[in-house]
Amino acid sequence: KIDGDRLWDSLMEMAKIGPGIAGGNNRQTLTDEDAEGRALFQSWCEAAGMTMGLDTMGNMFATRAGEDPDALPVYMGSHLDTQPTGGKYDGVLGVLGGLEVIRTMNDLGVKTKHPIVVTNWTNEEGTRFAPAMLASGVFAGKHTQDWAYGREDAEGKSFGAELKRIGWVGDEAVGARKMHAMFELHIEQGPILEAEKKDIGVVTHGQGLWWLQCTVTGKDAHTGSTPMNMRVNAGLGMARMTEAAHEIAMAHQPHAVGAVGHCDVYPNSRNVIPGKVVFTVDFRTPDLEKLTSMRSQFEAKAAEIAEELGLGLEIEPVGHFDPVTFDPGCVSAVRNAAERLGYSHMDIVSGAGHDACWINDVAPTAMIMCPCVDGLSHNEAEDISQEWAAAGTDVMLHAVLETAEI
Amino acid sequence: KIDGDRLWDSLMEMAKIGPGIAGGNNRQTLTDEDAEGRALFQSWCEAAGMTMGLDTMGNMFATRAGEDPDALPVYMGSHLDTQPTGGKYDGVLGVLGGLEVIRTMNDLGVKTKHPIVVTNWTNEEGTRFAPAMLASGVFAGKHTQDWAYGREDAEGKSFGAELKRIGWVGDEAVGARKMHAMFELHIEQGPILEAEKKDIGVVTHGQGLWWLQCTVTGKDAHTGSTPMNMRVNAGLGMARMTEAAHEIAMAHQPHAVGAVGHCDVYPNSRNVIPGKVVFTVDFRTPDLEKLTSMRSQFEAKAAEIAEELGLGLEIEPVGHFDPVTFDPGCVSAVRNAAERLGYSHMDIVSGAGHDACWINDVAPTAMIMCPCVDGLSHNEAEDISQEWAAAGTDVMLHAVLETAEI
Ligand SMILES: NC(=O)NCCC(=O)O
Ligand SMILES: NC(=O)NCCC(=O)O
Repeated sequence: KIDGDRLWDSLMEMAKIGPGIAGGNNRQTLTDEDAEGRALFQSWCEAAGMTMGLDTMGNMFATRAGEDPDALPVYMGSHLDTQPTGGKYDGVLGVLGGLEVIRTMNDLGVKTKHPIVVTNWTNEEGTRFAPAMLASGVFAGKHTQDWAYGREDAEGKSFGAELKRIGWVGDEAVGARKMHAMFELHIEQGPILEAEKKDIGVVTHGQGLWWLQCTVTGKDAHTGSTPMNMRVNAGLGMARMTEAAHEIAMAHQPHAVGAVGHCDVYPNSRNVIPGKVVFTVDFRTPDLEKLTSMRSQFEAKAAEIAEELGLGLEIEPVGHFDPVTFDPGCVSAVRNAAERLGYSHMDIVSGAGHDACWINDVAPTAMIMCPCVDGLSHNEAEDISQEWAAAGTDVMLHAVLETAEI
Repeated sequence: KIDGDRLWDSLMEMAKIGPGIAGGNNRQTLTDEDAEGRALFQSWCEAAGMTMGLDTMGNMFATRAGEDPDALPVYMGSHLDTQPTGGKYDGVLGVLGGLEVIRTMNDLGVKTKHPIVVTNWTNEEGTRFAPAMLASGVFAGKHTQDWAYGREDAEGKSFGAELKRIGWVGDEAVGARKMHAMFELHIEQGPILEAEKKDIGVVTHGQGLWWLQCTVTGKDAHTGSTPMNMRVNAGLGMARMTEAAHEIAMAHQPHAVGAVGHCDVYPNSRNVIPGKVVFTVDFRTPDLEKLTSMRSQFEAKAAEIAEELGLGLEIEPVGHFDPVTFDPGCVSAVRNAAERLGYSHMDIVSGAGHDACWINDVAPTAMIMCPCVDGLSHNEAEDISQEWAAAGTDVMLHAVLETAEI
């Protein structure tokens, strides 16, 4: 079993970097705080006897050598970046849980045939630079690195320039590494495990996603002196499309969600009818047919709303993945480990996107989930118990030991 | 008649300060650009032989002496601040038109019994610091200066601190001046004069206004892994309330308007259900009963929407004025001047709020309007013809000469 206290101490230590305003974290990707978090993780890895590799997307790979020089490594990993008002565990648990697995193996003097690598994937959250899981997506060949380097934040700063600025561009080509398998431990970010009183979620599938960035164009005009029938109100269009996204998700129940989380109004002045609004709709479901249907229904409805109000409309997909089926062998390794260790467990579908969803395309992959309080995530109040964290990490230890062959 | 070329040159010269991104201006109140515009205006006034007074709200008063030392001054004025993406004429025409009236009187050697004062009122637009017409409101006793000093912009900077920073705090007590009368020349900012092919709008009334700033509170949560029935989505609440404001305005036709121009979503991340949205509803109508009814219907409907979605809701009025009836004597002076000069004219209601609306409470006041292309304002593309500007300024010259007694 892993050392739950040591794991918890490391989680709390990392949470000191980029503190939030309400007990959580703001350690957004490629900020100075991200750089500081990376340096701390690197120092811990080196202290645990691992060697650090870094690729040109800033993905970090800390390796513990194996006994067979020809065996491909077994990976564990997740991300250290957070939402702007994020929690202390989303992503971080998967990286530091991986480190704790290595520390435990060191303590026990365990040797494995396969090398073991702990990874920190760059820009998983996708808030500063869309899409989410950007660097694991490049690793898996879903995006080109050039395209990723050109992604811009709200201030027009590019991913490539910011990665360079914080000093974390490596020299390894992205995706050059081959993997024997990969495991990602993550908090559930939803309410099911807690409600079902299970220690462990064995993640069999992941939801698919569409992020549809809508640019609605009207005409800036005075809110007082412009008659109602002369208005081309982009804000009203946004409001109706936001409602439409909600209704379309409701019409695709069960197992489908939809909402608008991002919305910028221009010029954002109390007495100016908005001439432009940019907002992003997020649709998800584990069912590919429903996913396609939600997107196309939304596109049709948004076009109708724009037409009615005389608005311009452009819809750009800024994030997408199909529903995922994780590798049956890796999934079994997780289920067996939970069983062997006597943790209560259930099969579960991941509601969120994860780096594992992309890596699953290039290597046998599975995920381990632990509960989180009230299913709350992407909120500074995100919380887990030390026992939940330890149980998930124990399961990862045993799944990795089985896969890496003692 | 005034010198239309000279007036136009001054308008174009002022427009060089704080240029916009699309041909208009961004010279928001109490910015460095505002300070630069003030300095230019002061230098022009001094070159025209006027003496500058400055009060503790930063209102500028340039005086041309009269012949009777006991006669109260006749005022002309408007504002030099602009919207973030504003036009070159909104406000500026009224200030530089006043200056052109003085220059013309100087050219002709005209003397008046009453002194004449050209005023630049601080923070008319209300974008950076709500409410609009802040400093003329303090002048008219609608707000205390302490309250005005404490108004904050989106970055939390206060009006008082910013006024001091740009160096335009005067020593005159606000509102100490008494006025014989006040005239404000302004572009219509609506489509009526152009449609009716009239040179001059004789403004008899002004619409009343409510600005209702709504803070909707939900719960930040993951857009992917939070089931639909567990969401407390402040963004969806904002969307429904935005639609409600529109519908309520439509139900109060004719002569009523409503829209949401300002909207900030928190944390504004694609994969976070908004935990908070702050937005402002702008309702206007010349009918006091309708104004009250729109506000109360909106408050009731917003509360119902919040209740349905489980959202918190606070509504803070951040701007208000009742419908205005301008002074019949001053209105006649404007109508007579237009008639005498042979300009086509019509009576009109101001759709926008103006400094004249507050000053009307403490001195006989009227407004002169000239058309603007397509009724467009609060847009960088705002446009007027040189002839329209000259006609409006001619009318102001003659109304002022009649009132100030040659
Ligand atoms: N796990 C997680 O929150 N990832 C961010 C990408 C997503 O929105 O699902
Ligand atoms: N004239 C003008 O645009 N004033 C700003 C205040 C308002 O919103 O009416």
